[in-house]
Amino acid sequence: MTGALDPAILAEIRARFAAQGLMATLGAEVLEVAPGLCRIAAPIRLETGQQHGHAHAGLTFAIADSACGYAALSMMPPEAEVVSVEMKINLLKPARGDRLIATGRVIRAGRRLTVVQGIVVAEDATGIAEVALLQGTMIPVAAS
Amino acid sequence: MTGALDPAILAEIRARFAAQGLMATLGAEVLEVAPGLCRIAAPIRLETGQQHGHAHAGLTFAIADSACGYAALSMMPPEAEVVSVEMKINLLKPARGDRLIATGRVIRAGRRLTVVQGIVVAEDATGIAEVALLQGTMIPVAAS
Amino acid sequence: MTGALDPAILAEIRARFAAQGLMATLGAEVLEVAPGLCRIAAPIRLETGQQHGHAHAGLTFAIADSACGYAALSMMPPEAEVVSVEMKINLLKPARGDRLIATGRVIRAGRRLTVVQGIVVAEDATGIAEVALLQGTMIPVAAS
Amino acid sequence: MTGALDPAILAEIRARFAAQGLMATLGAEVLEVAPGLCRIAAPIRLETGQQHGHAHAGLTFAIADSACGYAALSMMPPEAEVVSVEMKINLLKPARGDRLIATGRVIRAGRRLTVVQGIVVAEDATGIAEVALLQGTMIPVAAS
Repeated sequence: MTGALDPAILAEIRARFAAQGLMATLGAEVLEVAPGLCRIAAPIRLETGQQHGHAHAGLTFAIADSACGYAALSMMPPEAEVVSVEMKINLLKPARGDRLIATGRVIRAGRRLTVVQGIVVAEDATGIAEVALLQGTMIPVAAS
Repeated sequence: MTGALDPAILAEIRARFAAQGLMATLGAEVLEVAPGLCRIAAPIRLETGQQHGHAHAGLTFAIADSACGYAALSMMPPEAEVVSVEMKINLLKPARGDRLIATGRVIRAGRRLTVVQGIVVAEDATGIAEVALLQGTMIPVAAS
Repeated sequence: MTGALDPAILAEIRARFAAQGLMATLGAEVLEVAPGLCRIAAPIRLETGQQHGHAHAGLTFAIADSACGYAALSMMPPEAEVVSVEMKINLLKPARGDRLIATGRVIRAGRRLTVVQGIVVAEDATGIAEVALLQGTMIPVAAS
Repeated sequence: MTGALDPAILAEIRARFAAQGLMATLGAEVLEVAPGLCRIAAPIRLETGQQHGHAHAGLTFAIADSACGYAALSMMPPEAEVVSVEMKINLLKPARGDRLIATGRVIRAGRRLTVVQGIVVAEDATGIAEVALLQGTMIPVAAS
């Protein structure tokens, strides 16, 4: 899972990300894609917060699930698509700060199933803090 | 878990829901709150979709997590607050249709921990289909 | 998921259960198999307990995972095999009593994936109490 | 989470492990305890296997859950006890070989909740292979 990513796969991932309405609505952006890894950031804003202005668990989940999906996709052929089968999130502490950064990583890429792990940190001017840990399963699906 | 909900708790839940920026951004609304149960709906729109226009898993998770949280809150004193400790989602099929309806239910309300279950259906003109099943843990926190 | 189970599938499930060393070691027995459902019981004994003599979470998990697996298998052709992809357990209260009874149920049987749910109760002379709730994924594998 | 473990805590953990009937029945042994970490091994035997003689998922779960529990306990006062609230396991590949080794690790130790992660490898004469990944929550309980 090291080395550079095939530019065709990277272009495909960026195009698909741009086509995801929810990611645009959340203000999310792809920071990095490498074989078996993807990093996505999103600002912590009132429009995506809970009642105290911290990030809503739904925002944390959404960008981590996407980061895990693109991490899985990065190890498949360019025409593949991937969907989440299941995902489990443990919320470690309130997600306060300026933005969230989710890192998705492939733990095991199988022919039928890919197991992924996600870590989400909240970043402010003073540093970062881990706010969530995820573990899940992705499967390839035929492009439609 | 039957009977009517204390109006003070219901008013509190509706006020807190209204204060959640993400729920407004997703177009979500509370359909029902009863002791140990909460139902939240959100439209399936391009702005909250994935690349094929189906609901993004992040939308499905966000409203189900909120429904589970309010279900837990409905069984606590009016001044209590609740946060998600962990949540697991199994995605059963693509979330196609006009809107999602998430039902959160309390399975066991303990002094320290509340175990919840969520079911999300996608609704269109022809009927509904189950699209996700969730299981998680909520804890009460001191109001801040 | 109603109606009687094909006797060939039932015979196959009973034979496979008998071949599982761990189930014998735990004193587990199949109480019922029906299409999409399996019920397995095991005594709560010191040899399978934790330090207070209650059932160890490992016992609770083991029989629930097996019940879910056979529930999934009950809806597949007789020659199929099934393995657990992932399973999540919430432990609701200490598992005290005479025996555990785990019920596995198919929530969605797909071509590639089967989503299952498990409930475990502890039984004593006075009644039963729910002690665990599970949610997981099974996949068919070629018989070896 | 580095440095030596208080000998009183280590003695307490070894005594409690010895009192767990299931661990003895599975042939499990504690290989290592350090602050925030515990490693437990168990042989892969027919008596704890599934129908092909590989380790049953119940064995894999049982030792990983215990390793995570003792990892959590290692960071609490000597008189504390700990119970699993919930645990999620992803099974990465068949657990073939001579023995399983489960490593439990504390990801976040909070006052009310401890988040843990487990990794299980299967070992044979040729090396080791990761067979399972776990993520869960432990809580302290008053000693009874």
